Amino acid sequence: MPHALPSPDLVVVHEEVREALAAGVGVVALESTILAHGLPHPDNVTVAAQIEDAVRAGGAVPATIALLDGVVHIGLGAREVERVCTDPDIAKLSVRDVGVAAALRLSGATTVASTSALAHLAGIRVFATGGLGGVHRGASETFDVSADLGVLASTPVLVVCAGVKSILDVAGTLETLETLSVPVLGFRTDAFPGFYLSDSGHEVPWRVETAADAARVVVTRDRLGTDAAGVVLANPLPADRQVDRELHDRLVTEGLALLEREGVHGKDVTPRLLEYFHDHSGGESLRANVELVLANARLAGEVAVEVAAQTA
Amino acid sequence: MPHALPSPDLVVVHEEVREALAAGVGVVALESTILAHGLPHPDNVTVAAQIEDAVRAGGAVPATIALLDGVVHIGLGAREVERVCTDPDIAKLSVRDVGVAAALRLSGATTVASTSALAHLAGIRVFATGGLGGVHRGASETFDVSADLGVLASTPVLVVCAGVKSILDVAGTLETLETLSVPVLGFRTDAFPGFYLSDSGHEVPWRVETAADAARVVVTRDRLGTDAAGVVLANPLPADRQVDRELHDRLVTEGLALLEREGVHGKDVTPRLLEYFHDHSGGESLRANVELVLANARLAGEVAVEVAAQTA
Amino acid sequence: MPHALPSPDLVVVHEEVREALAAGVGVVALESTILAHGLPHPDNVTVAAQIEDAVRAGGAVPATIALLDGVVHIGLGAREVERVCTDPDIAKLSVRDVGVAAALRLSGATTVASTSALAHLAGIRVFATGGLGGVHRGASETFDVSADLGVLASTPVLVVCAGVKSILDVAGTLETLETLSVPVLGFRTDAFPGFYLSDSGHEVPWRVETAADAARVVVTRDRLGTDAAGVVLANPLPADRQVDRELHDRLVTEGLALLEREGVHGKDVTPRLLEYFHDHSGGESLRANVELVLANARLAGEVAVEVAAQTA
Ligand SMILES: [Mn+2]
Ligand SMILES: [Mn+2]
Ligand SMILES: [Mn+2]
Repeated sequence: MPHALPSPDLVVVHEEVREALAAGVGVVALESTILAHGLPHPDNVTVAAQIEDAVRAGGAVPATIALLDGVVHIGLGAREVERVCTDPDIAKLSVRDVGVAAALRLSGATTVASTSALAHLAGIRVFATGGLGGVHRGASETFDVSADLGVLASTPVLVVCAGVKSILDVAGTLETLETLSVPVLGFRTDAFPGFYLSDSGHEVPWRVETAADAARVVVTRDRLGTDAAGVVLANPLPADRQVDRELHDRLVTEGLALLEREGVHGKDVTPRLLEYFHDHSGGESLRANVELVLANARLAGEVAVEVAAQTA
Repeated sequence: MPHALPSPDLVVVHEEVREALAAGVGVVALESTILAHGLPHPDNVTVAAQIEDAVRAGGAVPATIALLDGVVHIGLGAREVERVCTDPDIAKLSVRDVGVAAALRLSGATTVASTSALAHLAGIRVFATGGLGGVHRGASETFDVSADLGVLASTPVLVVCAGVKSILDVAGTLETLETLSVPVLGFRTDAFPGFYLSDSGHEVPWRVETAADAARVVVTRDRLGTDAAGVVLANPLPADRQVDRELHDRLVTEGLALLEREGVHGKDVTPRLLEYFHDHSGGESLRANVELVLANARLAGEVAVEVAAQTA
Repeated sequence: MPHALPSPDLVVVHEEVREALAAGVGVVALESTILAHGLPHPDNVTVAAQIEDAVRAGGAVPATIALLDGVVHIGLGAREVERVCTDPDIAKLSVRDVGVAAALRLSGATTVASTSALAHLAGIRVFATGGLGGVHRGASETFDVSADLGVLASTPVLVVCAGVKSILDVAGTLETLETLSVPVLGFRTDAFPGFYLSDSGHEVPWRVETAADAARVVVTRDRLGTDAAGVVLANPLPADRQVDRELHDRLVTEGLALLEREGVHGKDVTPRLLEYFHDHSGGESLRANVELVLANARLAGEVAVEVAAQTA
């Protein structure tokens, strides 16, 4: 159950989103880190509109989330999207950072963790992103595990994603999701996707064939009430749209070596590696990244519509 | 505090259990994975009845838990026990799987994690099992840690068990229980038991001498309300009823080697290893496994009676 | 939001604390492990009074917390402080131990974990201590991670500390705080302090310049309501008051070797190492330990006043 919404000096819900929630229309939360730190300008502005269109094509209302001058925005207008896409002072805010940045009246883009938490706060139950954060390679020594996992373990939002990026420890991430009791559903697949790749080489514990079945899991879990965990709906790129596997494996190897050489760590890893991918894949990684986000937004729209219908 | 119970198309509480809960009579939750995947047929049917009798001998009402055709059953009749013991389509359901299987109208047996969560949902505060899941050997690389631990950290149920199986990382499991703030009580022992063995070689932080004292911990924790963690009540086999230590150590070594050879992993480890034990111990491991479950059910019955009395 | 307080046979709130809370005056929780197990007698008695005076100098009311004969005391009188400082039967109680010790009618001192949980129970939002528990060196093999971290992840209390002791894995502790979504603020510093040292060599994610800004984070997080995590306010010793770095590094190396030689583990590590520091630093470590606790108590008092003012 969502908390009562904080007062408007702290959280503003866009009018269309507010009306959709009140009317029981499906709403899909969208993160803003991909806009501020995941894609180059001006691609990010174009893609922001395409993602929202994909949600609408699925039948739901999009709600992109960001913090602007200390105020959480659930749903952005065109001017606010432009600002997220261009302002160099937009920080990257995990859920622990949102309250700090709000108190200090700063602006920032939201990650999977913070978008999930803020979506739940606003009563939104479906969220589309590219890939989840996870267990980093070498985490058994560094303890570097994304806050996304713990937030999913305690936030009842369904996240549509294309798995986790292959630069992470995918097996360790899946084990941690099991340890944290977060269900993982493959959408029309038995294989957990690997972001740029359709198949990470690991199985999913459950498979669903329709948006209605994914929604049924959300609604049934809500009704059961055993816990407040979210649900991961893993939606792979079609095999003929994934990044060429040979190119992919070469870029991963080179990117990891680069990070090591440059001593890049923590928050800076994903943007730096994405930059490397974008610079050296001849546009393939950017193409796949955008395609998978759009496919996830579309599917999330369909699931949100079904969740709303099954709840009514 | 238990949630309000979901509607009967999702959760059915057996009449005797419902009446006991309403009347403030002690109730003990029982898991069904031991029946469906832990013991061979037809031993499992016999043992199911013996476990319920042991709870009754302790003075309480048993509530074996399972999912049948998408409906959670809190307390099983003879026909439902028979089905759990023989149906080859009974899945093994951790807590994250229950809502998915319910949505998809499937059937399954419950683990420590899911039994704890469903017991709490139904207002049952004491649960008897054989052994806890824990930290797996090699988990620092694989991140393979049972969901049982995290669920215990957030579910106020007392679990009576004979420690964790010696195939796990017992020291790591105890450290993780400490990290997760789950209290561990030894019942008339200072040693954490090792399932088939009375003493795992590790100490327990607290020792209680009576069922009344164990119950007092449950009731005091509830009244204090600092957190929603469960309590582990570790009940060792008497020294003269444990598996011969030399036989035990040989079977562990052989079983682990077998798993490695066969590439067995995750959910399949415990049933496969139990099978190996049962096949190669000349009946000793099965004998001990059944004895410890019966002893735990008996003790859980006594604790449940005391919890009910101290709450009234 | 604090739970309703348990009845007085279980929790007693000192009159001055109760009145301060009712009147919206700032209150600072204080742990008692430093008194019972962190400082030698009779220094601990003197320091107990100095810490309370430092909280008052900041403008707030101190509430030292301990368990006496099974009753939680929120705020101690002089006689109770004397008992905590001298009774050899005072146990060290993490949050999982409090309910057990209360049920068994025992006495004990509270750690960061248990003090945080009990402060929250009583409606106290600011807590001063010396250093946090954290990830122990070698924890990737031993799984030895302090319960302090998990409790902070689910208990909305601001903890003023001087970082974590340099005997721990400081980098791993900071990563774990990130994974658990616990915000960390440096007070007028970009460097996470290392207890005896002003700078552990690691950065903090956020910096605040005033007690009012730290309080604003607490109040804003409460209003946002995304989660129930606490906040770490890291307050370094001034550079000219830290322990000489060369002496410090030598004592760490020697102390760790000693623990290894003596096979000291778990709960006994910190008191034993502190003892070694106190015995071999010519009074320097004790001097620094006391100074940093007093500085933290003073700052906590100021933050508590601001939290009260901003909440009114
Ligand atoms: Mn990280
Ligand atoms: Mn596992
Ligand atoms: Mn420890």
